Amino acid sequence: MFNKNRGSYRDILRDFSGEIIPDIDAFINGFFDEKIFSADLDFMKEILQFLKEYCIRDGKRIRPLLLLNSYNGYRIGFKKRHEIIKLGAVIEMMHSLLLIQDDIIDRSEMRRGAKALHIQLGDRYSSFSNNTLIGQDIASVTADILFSLSVEIISESKIRYDIKDRFLKIFSQTYEKTAWGQILDSLNTMPKNIDSKSDTPMQVSIMKTAYYTMVYPLTMGYILSGGKNKREIANVESFAIPLGIAFQVRDDLLGIFGIEKDTGKPNDSDILEGKITLPVQNTILKLSDREREQFIKLFLKLKKSKEDVEFIRKSIRDSGALEDTMKLHAKLIDDSYNLLDNLLMKRYNKDVIAGIIESVEDINI
Amino acid sequence: MFNKNRGSYRDILRDFSGEIIPDIDAFINGFFDEKIFSADLDFMKEILQFLKEYCIRDGKRIRPLLLLNSYNGYRIGFKKRHEIIKLGAVIEMMHSLLLIQDDIIDRSEMRRGAKALHIQLGDRYSSFSNNTLIGQDIASVTADILFSLSVEIISESKIRYDIKDRFLKIFSQTYEKTAWGQILDSLNTMPKNIDSKSDTPMQVSIMKTAYYTMVYPLTMGYILSGGKNKREIANVESFAIPLGIAFQVRDDLLGIFGIEKDTGKPNDSDILEGKITLPVQNTILKLSDREREQFIKLFLKLKKSKEDVEFIRKSIRDSGALEDTMKLHAKLIDDSYNLLDNLLMKRYNKDVIAGIIESVEDINI
Repeated sequence: MFNKNRGSYRDILRDFSGEIIPDIDAFINGFFDEKIFSADLDFMKEILQFLKEYCIRDGKRIRPLLLLNSYNGYRIGFKKRHEIIKLGAVIEMMHSLLLIQDDIIDRSEMRRGAKALHIQLGDRYSSFSNNTLIGQDIASVTADILFSLSVEIISESKIRYDIKDRFLKIFSQTYEKTAWGQILDSLNTMPKNIDSKSDTPMQVSIMKTAYYTMVYPLTMGYILSGGKNKREIANVESFAIPLGIAFQVRDDLLGIFGIEKDTGKPNDSDILEGKITLPVQNTILKLSDREREQFIKLFLKLKKSKEDVEFIRKSIRDSGALEDTMKLHAKLIDDSYNLLDNLLMKRYNKDVIAGIIESVEDINI
Repeated sequence: MFNKNRGSYRDILRDFSGEIIPDIDAFINGFFDEKIFSADLDFMKEILQFLKEYCIRDGKRIRPLLLLNSYNGYRIGFKKRHEIIKLGAVIEMMHSLLLIQDDIIDRSEMRRGAKALHIQLGDRYSSFSNNTLIGQDIASVTADILFSLSVEIISESKIRYDIKDRFLKIFSQTYEKTAWGQILDSLNTMPKNIDSKSDTPMQVSIMKTAYYTMVYPLTMGYILSGGKNKREIANVESFAIPLGIAFQVRDDLLGIFGIEKDTGKPNDSDILEGKITLPVQNTILKLSDREREQFIKLFLKLKKSKEDVEFIRKSIRDSGALEDTMKLHAKLIDDSYNLLDNLLMKRYNKDVIAGIIESVEDINI
């Protein structure tokens, strides 16, 4: 059913986002304002202000949107919308935690159009200390603060106790699996050896993106609606994994061939960092033995020139790996539309998700 | 009452520890073994094994002991001991998380008689990647795993739902306040300027040690026993803050004047790192203007010689700051014995705590 009339769902998604995102951001704002007000010491107020501004930087808010949409799509009758908004805000705050850690690990200086948090904190506090890593040291501990604040919000949320237990369980699974994905990603960046048949890039996409961005937020919404049906939970998973992989493939392709003014981020950092993404893995698989050796040697160079980056891009294109990856992406998108039909959620909320599929479908390279 | 017959409570503490610690460690062992068994990928099994071994390294287990002791001391009638053991294990796993982070921030290579986790992971995985910080990168993400696993155990614990909500709340406060203490500690290490009247070392002791090690574990036990009395919670706080500060003062003194074969850690690292602990702050306060200038200059040197360290030790001693700090410690210990009497917990469990006070009292320098 979703194969027809594509292109019209994005408006539905936009309307739904307009209903939800301002409330998520308003909750985050108010929550931090209250914390800033009641903080005992000035440095706490300052850092809470940095955290607040970081959490409400422009972003797609895709995870809270999926959570709220799934909750609305499965719930029966009137529920407490405000409590679910809080929990949507929690997963956005947890997302900020992961972005802060990511930027420390990737040595990235920018995030969402502004400085990475460890850079901001370094700017602020390096005049206090001779520790040149003070920004990174403090930023890494703010992860504990965001995690604690998230648990605090959950503890205070007024939802049924049995539902809260199930929510806490999946909340913990979410950040455990994502952390494993992050570790596998680290092991798969600047590796000393590359196995041309490795399925690690696919594993990373599934753990770090498909579960984190799609499966878990949708499942959280279902659980919060009171849902307990194991078959529906399995259907959500089957639907969300291909969509999540497609989301990562799109990100990988834009990270190599994207137009910087569209994506807002450099299109050479993945190559410079030496991340073995799916298009890179596909290239390694498709090249002849001699070409592969040269490609890998260049890819693993610590300092790559502009020409090196261009050669890598050309190899991904000329080997046919770009085309293969685009085909994989198209297939995953088709699967997503088809599997969406199986879900038992309300028609309107499926349309919202179709809007998300449309935006994942669109790759401008 | 506790001022008499000191010296006899340590046996009671030893008996109680013997009842509790093996069960805490057995739970941690079994929990990780189950996780290792069910992990999908080999690198997960490996890292879980590292985490398990890290969490059960020899240590005093003072926080789970206080939690269990407080629970036993306040509970009325039969309760589910095993569920409380699990929650004691949770706070020990969270302690491991903080130690892992501490060692990354302090660039420490050893912990509890073995290599720090980031060093172990670096040894294991540096042959996989050209990223020279891979050990530290992976170790910093294991913090998310330990936090998630802790939330999972709480979500599955079979305690009354309203008690679980209150436990979650104080659990979140614990790691939020401790993180603030850690940040203040970072700001107070290798500072560019030292204010002789600053109360920051005392603030750090209260936030990072007194609340974390004493107030919160005791309060958690009270809450888990079903306790809700605000006055008793305030009494626990009043009792545990001086004891916690005394614990930190002892640690600070052993960190400068301790005998390495007793303490198991170097007695120059705090000075080398440039941590402004309470004895150091007291020294700065007591020195003449001219001496102070020289002391601070030496203290803030990035590379200190053996002679520099010896000069700093001598200044702490000769200025009278050592004596003052010992007096402060003795006063805090006296306060602890006196305030312990006020608590409404059972006699036996107060005696266990008196055993802890005795061990905090004992400074062999």
